[in-house]
Amino acid sequence: MTKAQFIIIGDEILDGHIQDKNIAPLAQTLKELGVHVEQIILARDRADELFTVIDQAFRQSDLVITTGGLGPTKDDMTKEMFAKLSGGTLVENAEAKAIVTKHYERMNRPWSPERNFYHMLPQGVEAVFNPVGLAPGLSYRRNNKMILAAPGVPRELSGMLHEEFVPRIREHFSLGQKTQETFIIRTHSIPEEKIFFELEPTLWQQLEQYGRVSSLPQTFGVDIRLSQTEPKDHPSIQELINNSQLAPYVWQYGNLSLSAFILERARAQGLSLSCAESCTGGLTASLFTDIAGSSDVFMGSAVTYSNEAKMNLLKVKEQTLKDHGAVSVQVVKEMAEGARQVFASDFAVSYSGIAGPGGGSKEKPVGTVAIAVATPQETITYLKQYYGDRKVLKERFTKRGLFYLLEAIESYRA
Amino acid sequence: MTKAQFIIIGDEILDGHIQDKNIAPLAQTLKELGVHVEQIILARDRADELFTVIDQAFRQSDLVITTGGLGPTKDDMTKEMFAKLSGGTLVENAEAKAIVTKHYERMNRPWSPERNFYHMLPQGVEAVFNPVGLAPGLSYRRNNKMILAAPGVPRELSGMLHEEFVPRIREHFSLGQKTQETFIIRTHSIPEEKIFFELEPTLWQQLEQYGRVSSLPQTFGVDIRLSQTEPKDHPSIQELINNSQLAPYVWQYGNLSLSAFILERARAQGLSLSCAESCTGGLTASLFTDIAGSSDVFMGSAVTYSNEAKMNLLKVKEQTLKDHGAVSVQVVKEMAEGARQVFASDFAVSYSGIAGPGGGSKEKPVGTVAIAVATPQETITYLKQYYGDRKVLKERFTKRGLFYLLEAIESYRA
Repeated sequence: MTKAQFIIIGDEILDGHIQDKNIAPLAQTLKELGVHVEQIILARDRADELFTVIDQAFRQSDLVITTGGLGPTKDDMTKEMFAKLSGGTLVENAEAKAIVTKHYERMNRPWSPERNFYHMLPQGVEAVFNPVGLAPGLSYRRNNKMILAAPGVPRELSGMLHEEFVPRIREHFSLGQKTQETFIIRTHSIPEEKIFFELEPTLWQQLEQYGRVSSLPQTFGVDIRLSQTEPKDHPSIQELINNSQLAPYVWQYGNLSLSAFILERARAQGLSLSCAESCTGGLTASLFTDIAGSSDVFMGSAVTYSNEAKMNLLKVKEQTLKDHGAVSVQVVKEMAEGARQVFASDFAVSYSGIAGPGGGSKEKPVGTVAIAVATPQETITYLKQYYGDRKVLKERFTKRGLFYLLEAIESYRA
Repeated sequence: MTKAQFIIIGDEILDGHIQDKNIAPLAQTLKELGVHVEQIILARDRADELFTVIDQAFRQSDLVITTGGLGPTKDDMTKEMFAKLSGGTLVENAEAKAIVTKHYERMNRPWSPERNFYHMLPQGVEAVFNPVGLAPGLSYRRNNKMILAAPGVPRELSGMLHEEFVPRIREHFSLGQKTQETFIIRTHSIPEEKIFFELEPTLWQQLEQYGRVSSLPQTFGVDIRLSQTEPKDHPSIQELINNSQLAPYVWQYGNLSLSAFILERARAQGLSLSCAESCTGGLTASLFTDIAGSSDVFMGSAVTYSNEAKMNLLKVKEQTLKDHGAVSVQVVKEMAEGARQVFASDFAVSYSGIAGPGGGSKEKPVGTVAIAVATPQETITYLKQYYGDRKVLKERFTKRGLFYLLEAIESYRA
């Protein structure tokens, strides 16, 4: 099996100034290609340390991919690293020059060699077309090995990865069609240890017959993953689970996100959806609209932070707000019903809660959330309490409401 | 200077099944403590490889922090690693037992030693209280070094990091008050090379007098970061920039996110804000509501995916939709003006565009977006074209609109 390492370069990540967004797409893509990622290293923009890391990775693995350090400024030193690795001096590279000239024309900007050194490459290193940004990527091969460099900007990496790296990797390592796959069992409302130590103490061992097992706690449940499985075994795995105590907790066999899965279920039943959000502040809508093609099912969301907005947009009654407060099952009931009407949708989920850090009281502390799901037949309300900081609470509220919505969709028969 | 490494453990990250969310908070916190993070390694749940990585990091650095592998299932092997490192065998640990018993009581769940081995620790290893979840963390000290293990679930890591690790690290390494800080110059609407090769070819060198310079491209501009600066120098740096050609492109000296900065500016002028979102699908609202205290400035957002919702919630005219289509400056003008009214806000920003992958046409290809900013005095509209996949476009649309909104707020005099 082809073995790979990634080297993510940049002080800004090691200083916590930005969050890396390249590891996940890189890892997913290599997984799909059937390449085994052994290790990922995040390293600083310091020539000596960086070279040691790159050189060692290139000795250990068949394939190395670096991100970052390809720009025009002094802290960009990936090209220098490739020169050291290949032993080649920087020379004008016709292909790189052609790429750069083309890019600048496309962006209607002037290019001259002094602006950057994009046209200069170490001898023996190839330029890789950048479908999104300006700096070319790099490719260097030695014996059977290959090292590729992509820019650190996520959209540039993503473009280069899919359009340029994947075909090169596939060809260089003669990768055929993958036969082994990952099978995922997604559960909700149950902790890890209840599954493996109470409900089904032999489950782990039983699953190990089919592949490598791992268990991954999520916001409201556990993903059990079986990697290196044979697709022909998938029905047996599913049957094993369906006949186990775990069955009622499984919400999906597969890898769709919760919002994508809900959209698929709603679409299959011909149902449309909307939301009314206070404390979740648009996060629920954003999760739905991240999914391509959501617009045929998802009609929209009223993000009503203020009481006025709740009354104006969703027809929540002033009296209800006065009598029960904005965070109450009475108010979310009116919000969900209002959303169904105003968006002309079949189902609606609504939220009102306290994400903190301010706004809590003794009766309704930070972490309190009221949730309602309105269907063509009824409106169901919930009042829950969670723990966490503002961002965590926004996510927990959102996910909890989405599971209630999924439950309502799955139990709905028109 | 105290030197640290992180080891992020888990196949799920190296297989691209989930995105790591622990590196950024860990890195930020250590930066604030004045600890230098040398390297970060993501490693698999395989005992041999993992031990080599942990052992080497503990030899190289003063402080090592691991995340993941602390749960009750077979793929959790961090405790085993600590046993190998310390040479201690697993024994019942009174402190760990007390922590576990307390946790289970708090969560109203029964605990017995067979459920997990949370009460068993290698000799010489201390248990660390988990303020959020069940599994205790680990702490082991040798000579002047320290290695800490936290759970991989982000909210558990975050709780343990701030409440338990920070005081332990501060004490163990006798960390005083930090005197060096990072100074950030945030620019928009300008590419990196225009700054450093055209406008101000000597700027990098001038800035290097004050600290270590790095340049970080963002969605719509560049962050120039000076780390290891003396706070007394900050006014001089700011003056240097204000007198340079770069001045008109700077939107902030500091580290606030764009949405937080807009909220602060609006608050200072006593202005309230709202949005009307189609293609951005709630992302703009979610960025505002991520910020604590946003509710006094941000009134809400109407996420109107369907034409009906645009008419019902925002009073967009059917004729306008018919004459110009949903993605048009005419429609976003009515959306922004509708949002100002319905949310009773001073300013509103609105978006309608094509995030793809479907829905594009020859006249309005994927990446087209119409944006409007409505103020008490006027409504300004824009039509722009961007490149990228669905998520990238959502982000670019959102950020572009937020910069227009900021511009309008900054030039507004009531």
